Amino acid sequence: MKFFLLLSPLMFASSVMAQEAIRPDHAKIISPEHLEHGSVRFRLYAPDAKKVYLIGNISRFNKGDFDASEQPAPGVIPMRESEGIWEVRMDSLASDLYTYKFVVDGVEVVDPANVHVVRDVASVSNMVMVPGDAAGLYGVSDVPHGSVMTTWYRSAFNDNDRRLTIYLPSGYLGSDKSYPVLYLLHGMGGDETSWSQLGRAVEILDNLIAQGKAEPMIVVMPNGNMARNAAPGNSTLGLEQPDFYLPHTMDGVYERHFPEIVEFVDSNFRTLRDKNSRAVAGLSMGGFHSLYISAAYPDMFGYVGLFSAAIDPREFNSGVMPEVYSDRRAKVRRLFDEGVRLYWMGIGEDDFLYEANKKFRAELDADSIPYKYVETKGGHEWTNWRHYLSEYVPLLFR
Amino acid sequence: MKFFLLLSPLMFASSVMAQEAIRPDHAKIISPEHLEHGSVRFRLYAPDAKKVYLIGNISRFNKGDFDASEQPAPGVIPMRESEGIWEVRMDSLASDLYTYKFVVDGVEVVDPANVHVVRDVASVSNMVMVPGDAAGLYGVSDVPHGSVMTTWYRSAFNDNDRRLTIYLPSGYLGSDKSYPVLYLLHGMGGDETSWSQLGRAVEILDNLIAQGKAEPMIVVMPNGNMARNAAPGNSTLGLEQPDFYLPHTMDGVYERHFPEIVEFVDSNFRTLRDKNSRAVAGLSMGGFHSLYISAAYPDMFGYVGLFSAAIDPREFNSGVMPEVYSDRRAKVRRLFDEGVRLYWMGIGEDDFLYEANKKFRAELDADSIPYKYVETKGGHEWTNWRHYLSEYVPLLFR
Repeated sequence: MKFFLLLSPLMFASSVMAQEAIRPDHAKIISPEHLEHGSVRFRLYAPDAKKVYLIGNISRFNKGDFDASEQPAPGVIPMRESEGIWEVRMDSLASDLYTYKFVVDGVEVVDPANVHVVRDVASVSNMVMVPGDAAGLYGVSDVPHGSVMTTWYRSAFNDNDRRLTIYLPSGYLGSDKSYPVLYLLHGMGGDETSWSQLGRAVEILDNLIAQGKAEPMIVVMPNGNMARNAAPGNSTLGLEQPDFYLPHTMDGVYERHFPEIVEFVDSNFRTLRDKNSRAVAGLSMGGFHSLYISAAYPDMFGYVGLFSAAIDPREFNSGVMPEVYSDRRAKVRRLFDEGVRLYWMGIGEDDFLYEANKKFRAELDADSIPYKYVETKGGHEWTNWRHYLSEYVPLLFR
Repeated sequence: MKFFLLLSPLMFASSVMAQEAIRPDHAKIISPEHLEHGSVRFRLYAPDAKKVYLIGNISRFNKGDFDASEQPAPGVIPMRESEGIWEVRMDSLASDLYTYKFVVDGVEVVDPANVHVVRDVASVSNMVMVPGDAAGLYGVSDVPHGSVMTTWYRSAFNDNDRRLTIYLPSGYLGSDKSYPVLYLLHGMGGDETSWSQLGRAVEILDNLIAQGKAEPMIVVMPNGNMARNAAPGNSTLGLEQPDFYLPHTMDGVYERHFPEIVEFVDSNFRTLRDKNSRAVAGLSMGGFHSLYISAAYPDMFGYVGLFSAAIDPREFNSGVMPEVYSDRRAKVRRLFDEGVRLYWMGIGEDDFLYEANKKFRAELDADSIPYKYVETKGGHEWTNWRHYLSEYVPLLFR
């Protein structure tokens, strides 16, 4: 029996054959296609479409073979049609991980020729990795790999079980060694999957550790939305659609319950438990959480990282700010008085939080508090946060 | 500072504002929408589209408020347009997990209002769960949850590291108890993510264990494609596009290297290591692997499950069949002679492998070998495999 041949026409007969009349053969379309010198060609078979555009964070680069006079808006890249295939080439892209989509007659489409998709808050996009340095850092390399676990901790404070993601470095399994721990926090609208999916934290850690540029460490990625116990689709709310704004966020509850996470991790994994073996860092809302958690528990973390961090608490309708957000200046001074090995801040020059960060730096300067500051191009985006993580991690636990 | 208000217009300014001219506000579209009595309404905002269809495994049911005379083919459901919104209602759906997509002017689109997507071999679809019994089994319930780890084992046989997924039941962390192990194998074109993503194995195990219907157990989900060391996007091949056919599959190599997986699991996790504490099961190609692995190592597994299994080896160009596939009948007889507690087979009446399974059953009957057989409606599809797993797991280790 020719098993391979037999499978081919029959395996998907019920779904595919019914659709043949209207469905083109996407298998013949290669998209994205990597060309030399950081060029990438995108293609879509859509003979009945009137107009197709390329969008996504890749479109901000605006270099390629398209006619800019046909752009309806900056960052919306017109594609050209020939024999039913729409295409455009983007040129001189820096090595990095980009996201993109197509817009077909006004409808956002993920590329049917590219299965690599990722969710960012409430929308799904395709991923494309331009080869080079960043790809070597954000891609899966032929190096020893860590393990990634999703598990649930009991929160007595919230009276529920909450999901988190934990990275265990290569060597954790099959040894009895204990490791330092980085707590890595997501931004608003994110969850316990953000850093491992969009942030490429697993690949970054694997690669930096294998290159000898970072110490082997455990990385804990919790869920910072207190109105949810897990990411959309992984919670008891079922296949809910995510919201950017959730109630019960940045109201002090996450910070107050945070020791439960540390307690769970220290009880269930082989961790080093002194302050100089613990780091906390986060992006945007996660930077805000890192700032106030480290200040609230000055004995907990020896290393703090604020990536494009929100700095100031919001106004509370009650007019009463939670205690964890009050007296920031005095608490940060105390954190340094008790000894912190690294206070790291990174932000992009176009970030809408730039001014708030500048004022916070002035506050630190006025108090003669030492910190490390990295300013990059760009704004409030994952391109920067992957970069900041890659700069921050090598400074820890050495 | 009104932090919440400030975030709103600026957070995604660079990507969203540029696209406003051409991008509708998908947030206003609710899709899918669950109505009473197993009805689900699907919607897409596409004012410029000429024709929109609903496809996917949900479309096979062909009950709803559409005009069948407008169907270009069975299973392709026409949607109706009103004020730019296309919609269709599907009725009387059994409680289950379904996949769907839209076809917009000939282009396959995942629903922009639904972030829940899943990859099946080389295409990405949306998921929708119709409430009821199956949802209670395949959904995340408010019960104690197991942990899910992806890790890598060293294969000396293949001289590489290979990725696998492992489910650890609730109670594994924080105890020193040892557990029985189910090895759960995917089909052709699948990988180490198939059972946990498409197969809902994590939710099924959590729910059955919590209901007292299954013993707490470890579930190991390896990668059965010997030409790959991990799923697409997780391997050293980068963001490659998956193929249904891969070289180096069903050629005996996976079966011969399989003891390396068992050795890795027994060395790194708290397992019960006797044959009656080990089960193997798989779907399609994974059923084929389960058949020949259990027969090749009669001391390894006390429980065997063949879900819509491929039965017969393909013809080899060399004319020489690998030893692991030869003398099947004698080897299966020996497996039973040495004692196997359960030999379980399930298949759908429309499955293209139905006849091969029927012949295999006749072979077992002729040899007076006892097995448990379940025949269902439908064919070679995940709807059946999730069902078979839910029937098989309660029979293990009791």
